[in-house]
Amino acid sequence: MTNIFAFALGISRHSAAGAMLDCYFPAPCMQPDINLSEIISRHFSAGVTEVAAAVAAAFADELPEGQLKQATQALTAGERALRCVVLENDDAISSTAEAYLKLHLLSHRLALPNSLNLDNIFAHLPNVAWTTRGPIAVDELAAALIKAQTQGQHLEVMAVDKFPKMTNYVVPSGVRIADASRIRLGAFLGDGTTVMHEGFINFNAGALGPNMIEGRVSQGVTVGANSDLGGSSSTMGTLSGGGEIVISVGENCLIGANAGTGIPLGDRCTIEAGLYITAGTKISLLDETGTEVRKVKARELAGGDDLLFIRNSETGRIECRSNRRAIELNAQLHAHN
Amino acid sequence: MTNIFAFALGISRHSAAGAMLDCYFPAPCMQPDINLSEIISRHFSAGVTEVAAAVAAAFADELPEGQLKQATQALTAGERALRCVVLENDDAISSTAEAYLKLHLLSHRLALPNSLNLDNIFAHLPNVAWTTRGPIAVDELAAALIKAQTQGQHLEVMAVDKFPKMTNYVVPSGVRIADASRIRLGAFLGDGTTVMHEGFINFNAGALGPNMIEGRVSQGVTVGANSDLGGSSSTMGTLSGGGEIVISVGENCLIGANAGTGIPLGDRCTIEAGLYITAGTKISLLDETGTEVRKVKARELAGGDDLLFIRNSETGRIECRSNRRAIELNAQLHAHN
Amino acid sequence: MTNIFAFALGISRHSAAGAMLDCYFPAPCMQPDINLSEIISRHFSAGVTEVAAAVAAAFADELPEGQLKQATQALTAGERALRCVVLENDDAISSTAEAYLKLHLLSHRLALPNSLNLDNIFAHLPNVAWTTRGPIAVDELAAALIKAQTQGQHLEVMAVDKFPKMTNYVVPSGVRIADASRIRLGAFLGDGTTVMHEGFINFNAGALGPNMIEGRVSQGVTVGANSDLGGSSSTMGTLSGGGEIVISVGENCLIGANAGTGIPLGDRCTIEAGLYITAGTKISLLDETGTEVRKVKARELAGGDDLLFIRNSETGRIECRSNRRAIELNAQLHAHN
Repeated sequence: MTNIFAFALGISRHSAAGAMLDCYFPAPCMQPDINLSEIISRHFSAGVTEVAAAVAAAFADELPEGQLKQATQALTAGERALRCVVLENDDAISSTAEAYLKLHLLSHRLALPNSLNLDNIFAHLPNVAWTTRGPIAVDELAAALIKAQTQGQHLEVMAVDKFPKMTNYVVPSGVRIADASRIRLGAFLGDGTTVMHEGFINFNAGALGPNMIEGRVSQGVTVGANSDLGGSSSTMGTLSGGGEIVISVGENCLIGANAGTGIPLGDRCTIEAGLYITAGTKISLLDETGTEVRKVKARELAGGDDLLFIRNSETGRIECRSNRRAIELNAQLHAHN
Repeated sequence: MTNIFAFALGISRHSAAGAMLDCYFPAPCMQPDINLSEIISRHFSAGVTEVAAAVAAAFADELPEGQLKQATQALTAGERALRCVVLENDDAISSTAEAYLKLHLLSHRLALPNSLNLDNIFAHLPNVAWTTRGPIAVDELAAALIKAQTQGQHLEVMAVDKFPKMTNYVVPSGVRIADASRIRLGAFLGDGTTVMHEGFINFNAGALGPNMIEGRVSQGVTVGANSDLGGSSSTMGTLSGGGEIVISVGENCLIGANAGTGIPLGDRCTIEAGLYITAGTKISLLDETGTEVRKVKARELAGGDDLLFIRNSETGRIECRSNRRAIELNAQLHAHN
Repeated sequence: MTNIFAFALGISRHSAAGAMLDCYFPAPCMQPDINLSEIISRHFSAGVTEVAAAVAAAFADELPEGQLKQATQALTAGERALRCVVLENDDAISSTAEAYLKLHLLSHRLALPNSLNLDNIFAHLPNVAWTTRGPIAVDELAAALIKAQTQGQHLEVMAVDKFPKMTNYVVPSGVRIADASRIRLGAFLGDGTTVMHEGFINFNAGALGPNMIEGRVSQGVTVGANSDLGGSSSTMGTLSGGGEIVISVGENCLIGANAGTGIPLGDRCTIEAGLYITAGTKISLLDETGTEVRKVKARELAGGDDLLFIRNSETGRIECRSNRRAIELNAQLHAHN
């Protein structure tokens, strides 16, 4: 192999019927350097393969000190066959193991949201019952529940979903997650991110950190440094308006509690609590004296910096002012004339 | 027994003091046919009874091939005494086992929400600590926590509630449930229903499927085919307005993120993100030219089809237009004149 | 010791490296009477100490019949060393064990929110992975996940947070908690409180009971008797407006679904579904005839009784009327003239 896009070694879990349910990769790699690529190439083939613990142990012996070596040694301790994935290119997903590798790359902060080819991911992720005994195939769950009950044991089913929760696979450094059931594997949580109980981060979405996330970060959405999402605030996954616009929230923004946005925001923007802006919302642009400059649809403000969105409580009109923290940027608004 | 309304065989769990905490019925039946009714009558009495595994095994032998036979055989494998419930009529609930049977009927899709007599259900469901070791009586929990701690074990308490979560009892086919703690036993999830992390479905409530549920389906509410509930959207359980109106959402509707409804909606209705309609909300009905036809209270629009509800972002006025996907139905609005 | 502010005996859990992760105190005491103080003083020193099970057993022997004696006896059954905390004063927090003691005092209903000195609590609570095997130090989690996987076991991580969930430590009497992951240790739940799936109660916050909580009770917020928080309603933690105002909700209030408040409310107040009031919101005060008396900022209405907040659906104006359940109190509004 002359080129390796991504590599991981880990453990796959399977249904009683033999279908792969998930993969756990403690130390995935993306675009390994030449030395590491050569070591990988000597031991493993491209694609998804099963490798004996002894093969993995020999691989570990050649690795330089570090996380990958440690994790590989720990994996081989069980003497179980392991699962290896070597991707030469970032192609569309063609197997469950590849899907899990890419989700791991995101949650290990090796790739930013929207930077990986995730085509066909839904097709290759089986719908799984996630239980206190690990993943169980959905069509084997009813029998497992009966068996547990007849044995006087308790089987707890936490979710029935294609995506597992992130924290059972990896917890990146410097984060707090108040309710882990709300962070899917494939979420990107930057250092310094706190996700409170009402927060949610989908796969291929992320908070770049540091952030306080008490709202919902939909698939494809990213939130920049020092931006906060208030309790139950909403970000739309994508929107139609002459094409699909990926929503993002810049740095130093605040989306208030119970508020929401259907447009991308630049830096230092605020949406007041309880106000939902969609792409088609007609908005009055106000200058620094509070005079209406003109009316625009929200999508025309997409990506703008220093914007403050409120609904005037005397008139019900939705208004956009230059954020008072940055009055000098009002010129930007006038530039739209 | 000449008539059987519902039947189930399963396992009940009890407090240390002997109180029934829950029942698990893997294959409940509603209105069994004559053949099955006769087999049931030969082996079991009306009401709630304890039956020996051998009796259940003899019952299983007589059953035709199918889910009930398989589940019954699996239940008898434990050689534990089982719990049998035979209801001759759909009367008010008079025991914990009956309450659990009716909740199972709903979640097994054998009965639609609002079709069963659930009177007295709260009185007969004990408040239970739901833990990783199964149900524990609330007044026995403190001792269980101390004991686990002194033994160096961990006891996780997921809920303290009268209703357990559905997925520990049954997962109907063709569904995804991102956070199972938000679906109570007694919820009805039709085939093709996905409930995301922010979604919630109460007992005696349901999504008929297929649906994308990211909002809250309150007790008594049903959501029709191809309707979506946006993130954190709300449906009111009941409303006062000259009587109790049960809320429902028809087919092909969209309730936007952070929106809500206090009136039933017909088909093809949309409520924009962030807008909450209550029964008493005064709404401007607009015709196809955008001209106000008349003002109505929202309750007058209950059950109407093809309605689009927005709050005008220039005037703050709540408006209802015929949904643009179905302009031909504007006549319906004028009919209210 | 002449004076004891708080006392507790329990079990602490530690990381592999020896750092304290949490403490469990089944029967904490606040301001014990002279007799009990003397018994405590005879057996234990001030501060945080480790005590042998035999010492605790001797202490239990001297105690009068009651919860503390029972809990202490149960604790000693494991013959493990126990953790004792004796606080002479309500000083700023200076250790993990003290932090846990104060959180227990709140959840055991021995202290109301905002009545304890919680200074430095964040500094003394370690960030912990809360798992089905109990707390694990964040920097030991990756190794624990690998080990579980290689052994074919499942390790479920429910949260990564400084605060654990309350129900694993104490469930006060007379409450229902539909999703325990949303109640932090340190929450105060009065008798008769039901917290539904969408409800949330932070540490040092509480519902005094009876209450139906389907919204978010932020840190420092208290909700009075017979007040209900609708689904996904929001209470702001604190607000700036000439100083920090602690939000509270009085008795017999209703905050509608998806609504919110940034000001404290008195008794018998209602905020309609979907309306968010912040301190700076300009509001039209209406008299009993619906005539505007004057315009105020919401913060001027802080703590007022019998107020009904709506957004006029014809004009978009936010209005405050005297709650129709208490028309006689309109005079209060006019008093602001």
